[in-house]
Amino acid sequence: MKIVCSQVDLKNNLSLISRAVPSRPTHPILANVLLVADEDKNQITLTGFDLSLGMRTTFSAEVEEGGVITLPAKLFNDIITRLPEGQIVLEYEEDELDENPLVSLNSLSGKFQLRGVKADEYPELPTIEKEEAFYLSIPALSEGLKGSLFAASSDETKQILTGIHLKRQLDSLEFAATDGHRLAVVKTIEEKEDEDETETENPITEEQNFTVTIPARALRELEKIMAMGKEEDSMALYVDEGQVVFELGTQHLTSRKLDGAYPNYNQLIPKSFERSIVIERKALIDSLERVSVLTDQKNNLVKFSLNTESKQVNVSVEAKELGNAKESIDAEIIGDDFEIGFNIRYLMDGLKALSTNEIKFQFNGVTQPVIATPVGGMQMTYLIMPVQIRD
Amino acid sequence: MKIVCSQVDLKNNLSLISRAVPSRPTHPILANVLLVADEDKNQITLTGFDLSLGMRTTFSAEVEEGGVITLPAKLFNDIITRLPEGQIVLEYEEDELDENPLVSLNSLSGKFQLRGVKADEYPELPTIEKEEAFYLSIPALSEGLKGSLFAASSDETKQILTGIHLKRQLDSLEFAATDGHRLAVVKTIEEKEDEDETETENPITEEQNFTVTIPARALRELEKIMAMGKEEDSMALYVDEGQVVFELGTQHLTSRKLDGAYPNYNQLIPKSFERSIVIERKALIDSLERVSVLTDQKNNLVKFSLNTESKQVNVSVEAKELGNAKESIDAEIIGDDFEIGFNIRYLMDGLKALSTNEIKFQFNGVTQPVIATPVGGMQMTYLIMPVQIRD
Repeated sequence: MKIVCSQVDLKNNLSLISRAVPSRPTHPILANVLLVADEDKNQITLTGFDLSLGMRTTFSAEVEEGGVITLPAKLFNDIITRLPEGQIVLEYEEDELDENPLVSLNSLSGKFQLRGVKADEYPELPTIEKEEAFYLSIPALSEGLKGSLFAASSDETKQILTGIHLKRQLDSLEFAATDGHRLAVVKTIEEKEDEDETETENPITEEQNFTVTIPARALRELEKIMAMGKEEDSMALYVDEGQVVFELGTQHLTSRKLDGAYPNYNQLIPKSFERSIVIERKALIDSLERVSVLTDQKNNLVKFSLNTESKQVNVSVEAKELGNAKESIDAEIIGDDFEIGFNIRYLMDGLKALSTNEIKFQFNGVTQPVIATPVGGMQMTYLIMPVQIRD
Repeated sequence: MKIVCSQVDLKNNLSLISRAVPSRPTHPILANVLLVADEDKNQITLTGFDLSLGMRTTFSAEVEEGGVITLPAKLFNDIITRLPEGQIVLEYEEDELDENPLVSLNSLSGKFQLRGVKADEYPELPTIEKEEAFYLSIPALSEGLKGSLFAASSDETKQILTGIHLKRQLDSLEFAATDGHRLAVVKTIEEKEDEDETETENPITEEQNFTVTIPARALRELEKIMAMGKEEDSMALYVDEGQVVFELGTQHLTSRKLDGAYPNYNQLIPKSFERSIVIERKALIDSLERVSVLTDQKNNLVKFSLNTESKQVNVSVEAKELGNAKESIDAEIIGDDFEIGFNIRYLMDGLKALSTNEIKFQFNGVTQPVIATPVGGMQMTYLIMPVQIRD
């Protein structure tokens, strides 16, 4: 193999797919990246794979002699990151491939040699029959992920809840995540393409509806791929029995699906409410950040008191031994005076994801689910279970 | 007590002295800061103290009613940091002082109450008879600390080596630090003051010579105090049997001295050398950072090869299983071809502290101490013991 490529291209592509390389691999070869140099196409393809999440990326290079090799991902990445900008020549002798060859990396600054491992044992990325792709617009996908990823469970024993549930119905795509304490649901509408040909060739039909639960971890990496794309690009999604594949230009992400029935979350969302407030999001976040200093690590309790007379919501925290804090924020209140407790962390997570100037909270009783929605902007519903206030 | 002060003043002063508050205090009161409000002077004084390092700072405020109280440092600091800019009113009822009073903190955003603890048990900062102050210029002190602090030992069992040794002889002040593997010595010259009165009033005499070893930890905090001062300021230093006190304006730092004889380091520095190189500092650091990726965690060995023919120094690392790296850097070489090994971490620490464009290395044999000095700029000597190269 002999290839000449730019340090910047190699660095960017390597650092992207390195995120799929496991830090504690179940098999040693998985700690490596797969490098394929295609002499005909003058392209380099890099792959990282932990058997659940796989990432693959392709970029142009001068391939003087093609080949296939794997290299230790961390060392390779650490070296490439530190090399000066400019050309890198990467090569090894094909006749050394029986043993694990020393791959040399020559740059302006000097010469590295890195022990490669032949690619025989490197697993294949799962492939999918690519006939039914769903195209998702980047802005809609971004919005959906931003509004849901934070609410997924990090508890690996709750398998299905560590994922994001995607539901496509005609031109809408719904994202849902819950960890049992709170639920975030974002509904995005696919924009109709302006060009007639697209509309007639790819009308969205009921047969194209699907539901799938994808590990949050894979979707966090997808966000990074999207950050490299343009707003007007579309992400292609392929779904089969066990896998999903996302494709954006030459970037490719594959992930296993999460098995099991996703909770029927829509039935948890109350349809009518006894009271509501509209409040400035930023002011509320600032207050919560201040009073959170005094919340108890155990229950993280913050109390909301709706005061119809002063037209204010009082946000307060009581730490018996240490002190207390109280702030008042103007709000439009519909309903009567009312007190309710929240886990401050869950509350702040949602407020940070909601992204509009004003937030509407809707309440029933002190033990019933509370709904927060943005006023204007994205279609998002954040359900949070109250915490009992103990006196 | 009732005081009105600016959030910015309180925040800055509190965050400074909080650094002397121990995270695991030997006595609960030491987790608090001492707050003294002086009604006559309209000043607030804050103190943090871990029984070894003490910091005290004074700033102006409106003191409507004086008083003395201690507050939990971490919570107090966390709250003040988050409060909006503007006035803060801090108060408690003096008649509640028998119990630990709730101290209220009112700001534009709302009201905090924080449980205070009366100051009776808070220890006194050590004081020193303030007749013989030494005045150190800020630039000289900065230079001395930057060039030595990094080389102090972090091994608490080597007490005396965890400090910086200061030696004043007439108008020179020498800073030394060593951890047994390397030694850094910086010599600074006190600039003569231009104003005649200072020169005649405070001539430096032999009686003012002193040597003292001060914990590196205290001097790292001193660097932060200095960052708040101006270049033309002078730091006052008071030394007695067990303590040192530094004073800069209203900032005050006290530290115990380290007991024991400091190694006679000057005898370790060779007086003559068989060979030397002059090399660009930045190029060498960059090369070392790249090749360090492949150094073995255990001995961190990097090899220097002086090549008189190519007029280059080859910097190389060999990681048997993983690969190797080699870079070449132009250098002026005096002497014959030569190979020597270093601990790459010790080498980089010194290079980063040296701060000139070019560095001179002086060598004798492969097991004898090597000296690095800046070419031009500060008077610094960095001694590093070579590591044996095993083939």
